[in-house]
Amino acid sequence: MFCLCQAECKVFVLHISSLFKELNNSNIKKADYLRGKTVVNAFYENSTRTRVSFEIAAKRLGADAINFTASSSSAKKGETLIDTIANMEAMKTDIFVLRHSSSGAAQFVAENSNASIINAGDGLNEHPSQALLDLFTIKEIKGGFENLTVAIIGDIFHSRVARSDIYVMKTLGIKVKLFGNPMMFSNHLDVFGCYTCKDIKEAIEGSDVLIMLRVQLERQDGQPPFPSIREYSKFFGLTSSKMKHAKKGVLVMHPGPINRGVELDSDVADDPNVSVVLNQVESGAAMRMAILKILNDNRNK
Amino acid sequence: MFCLCQAECKVFVLHISSLFKELNNSNIKKADYLRGKTVVNAFYENSTRTRVSFEIAAKRLGADAINFTASSSSAKKGETLIDTIANMEAMKTDIFVLRHSSSGAAQFVAENSNASIINAGDGLNEHPSQALLDLFTIKEIKGGFENLTVAIIGDIFHSRVARSDIYVMKTLGIKVKLFGNPMMFSNHLDVFGCYTCKDIKEAIEGSDVLIMLRVQLERQDGQPPFPSIREYSKFFGLTSSKMKHAKKGVLVMHPGPINRGVELDSDVADDPNVSVVLNQVESGAAMRMAILKILNDNRNK
Amino acid sequence: MFCLCQAECKVFVLHISSLFKELNNSNIKKADYLRGKTVVNAFYENSTRTRVSFEIAAKRLGADAINFTASSSSAKKGETLIDTIANMEAMKTDIFVLRHSSSGAAQFVAENSNASIINAGDGLNEHPSQALLDLFTIKEIKGGFENLTVAIIGDIFHSRVARSDIYVMKTLGIKVKLFGNPMMFSNHLDVFGCYTCKDIKEAIEGSDVLIMLRVQLERQDGQPPFPSIREYSKFFGLTSSKMKHAKKGVLVMHPGPINRGVELDSDVADDPNVSVVLNQVESGAAMRMAILKILNDNRNK
Repeated sequence: MFCLCQAECKVFVLHISSLFKELNNSNIKKADYLRGKTVVNAFYENSTRTRVSFEIAAKRLGADAINFTASSSSAKKGETLIDTIANMEAMKTDIFVLRHSSSGAAQFVAENSNASIINAGDGLNEHPSQALLDLFTIKEIKGGFENLTVAIIGDIFHSRVARSDIYVMKTLGIKVKLFGNPMMFSNHLDVFGCYTCKDIKEAIEGSDVLIMLRVQLERQDGQPPFPSIREYSKFFGLTSSKMKHAKKGVLVMHPGPINRGVELDSDVADDPNVSVVLNQVESGAAMRMAILKILNDNRNK
Repeated sequence: MFCLCQAECKVFVLHISSLFKELNNSNIKKADYLRGKTVVNAFYENSTRTRVSFEIAAKRLGADAINFTASSSSAKKGETLIDTIANMEAMKTDIFVLRHSSSGAAQFVAENSNASIINAGDGLNEHPSQALLDLFTIKEIKGGFENLTVAIIGDIFHSRVARSDIYVMKTLGIKVKLFGNPMMFSNHLDVFGCYTCKDIKEAIEGSDVLIMLRVQLERQDGQPPFPSIREYSKFFGLTSSKMKHAKKGVLVMHPGPINRGVELDSDVADDPNVSVVLNQVESGAAMRMAILKILNDNRNK
Repeated sequence: MFCLCQAECKVFVLHISSLFKELNNSNIKKADYLRGKTVVNAFYENSTRTRVSFEIAAKRLGADAINFTASSSSAKKGETLIDTIANMEAMKTDIFVLRHSSSGAAQFVAENSNASIINAGDGLNEHPSQALLDLFTIKEIKGGFENLTVAIIGDIFHSRVARSDIYVMKTLGIKVKLFGNPMMFSNHLDVFGCYTCKDIKEAIEGSDVLIMLRVQLERQDGQPPFPSIREYSKFFGLTSSKMKHAKKGVLVMHPGPINRGVELDSDVADDPNVSVVLNQVESGAAMRMAILKILNDNRNK
């Protein structure tokens, strides 16, 4: 499984990503490092950008890319996840990109098969390629990670993006501030040593990067951790008036898709001086190419 | 956006199409003009032939082709169309093939993003690649467009195919006759200066081409513009007995999929002497290759 | 249509499969025999492994592979199967891989169009590529088919795998024993001259290969041919205790996906000494490449 925990590896992945970012901005976006390899996008949850981003990455690297989704899959015929992956692997596929609604799914498959698994989001747990592309975006613009403060704002508890961001940023020594209401936290987040803010103003002030989390109503069983969308916007949403508290040169990030007017107002989301939302997406394609290449190189060692 | 309004461009696209038709009939259907480019098929409405036709076209040109449909897309998570396209574009995709149920969707996206958009059908508005493949089919068989009369028969109002056909044919000086019942018309069609027939016999007589429109029950909110399928067939359907009024050498066209026995009887649809329905489909693959190549060439200028 | 009935062809397909199996285990799984060709996966029934297996096969052979499924297809708009295939063929596609819920669908299309059709499963009728990959798996491990006894156990009547296996195995002179309850048989199976066992013990004893059929509850209109899953497992399921009756060196096969604990217990399915379930899947990818290559070679003669 692609691993977040080796600092060296992370620096290396950022370097390779910058090469692929350059390729993606060139005339012929093709580098056949994975020619003759098969990459399987196994998406057990709906996704556009992550699936498309990985599919584009695989194809630009010359791999054969295969998509399958839960709705058309043998999961419906009662097959276990491990069996499905083992079957695909028997067809001599090389790398799986797995998104699954169960926390720990990617880890579980990686431990119970010989397949190379990239975690493209597992339940409420992690979304490591998103964290890496967030890092890459920050590095490209800020030049590095020293003396950096990042605020993550919103429903931390339900966000795998937040969990992966916190993990990787703390590992790199970035100061992380969190803001959400008490129902948007869970105790285990304390172990990362993040600072918890009392209001959004405190989160914004002095931060170099503001990561606005998506309100994921589809992930919450009927009972969202806030009374109404209007309340959410008032207390946790980023508006141009709240941006007055922000440091000069602040970057506003969002994993997408944006709920405009809820966690992020359009005048902030579309402000080219602060919003780097589309830079994140651009970074994503390059980062996924880097992840695929490094993983493939390691398989062939 | 690919544009219908430049007469020169249209002639050029017919010429390029004929080269690709030749390629498609050769042993190796591959011409890597779009190698290293990414074409996104963004289909917000169900489609087989148009999506497959564009996908085949992109792949034969060596592009990386990415499909996504509304049902698995972030549209379900509340993302706006403009945001979805802008996100894909940030991944350095080159061309979008967009089908959408809203009239004007392709135009709207083209005006509000830097993306290159091909309109693959927008609501009740236009379906320009269908009109161009219709033109190409006529030119291949008739040799040109001079002194040509085309009859379009059926539910003109609900047909984006009719609208695009009328537009491009009138531009080229083709005489266009229309026939449908009053509920199948709208006033703005008059501006094109088409002749309206009083019955199907008048539409058929003297016409060189009969374009039979598909009855699209799925597009009509409960209330179709005719009392019953049987009535439709009697007044607006093309049968072999009605074909007796037709000019020698007449061509019968249909955008597909055919409702056999409704707008077109099987003995006409399958008569190789008059039906060019499958020629249209063949033209379609070649035409879409031409459109993609020309658009890509223009992007790289 | 790819044909099961020529013994020479079958031996040949096994030979070509072994070459592709070698390719699939090499570093660069690519052999561009079908470059410039278009293969259409037309799946009117849900499938993961068969669709993915054929898609991988087509892509490794360098073909352009196009997927379409019933749910997004013009079948929903009322188009006939023949029309859909004829339309795709007009786009100059080369080979169709067709799965359909109607028995005889592939044969019907093959007889009514010029398309090259591979039957990837038609209703209760046949699943020839599965039978060929079963054969190939047996040959790879047992070395040949002489003096071989194969037992097929389960719901023979509802199994297109059983039907194709019986057909091809009897043709090659393999002794076939069947076991199921009376509701799992149909009279026409007698014509193949298979031996019918009175219990599972008799089926297991002396057999070189045990093919455990999948319980396909999704194929049975409400009324399965056995009272309960627990009963099924007791009388027709393969457990490690029943394996005591098996010959040394016996192979256990299953077309997948496995209902663990129903027709096959996990301790048998996962026993590397007897289970060749994943070998079957590996064979499948190689076999589908062989089928596509041979069919393409024949088209170009």
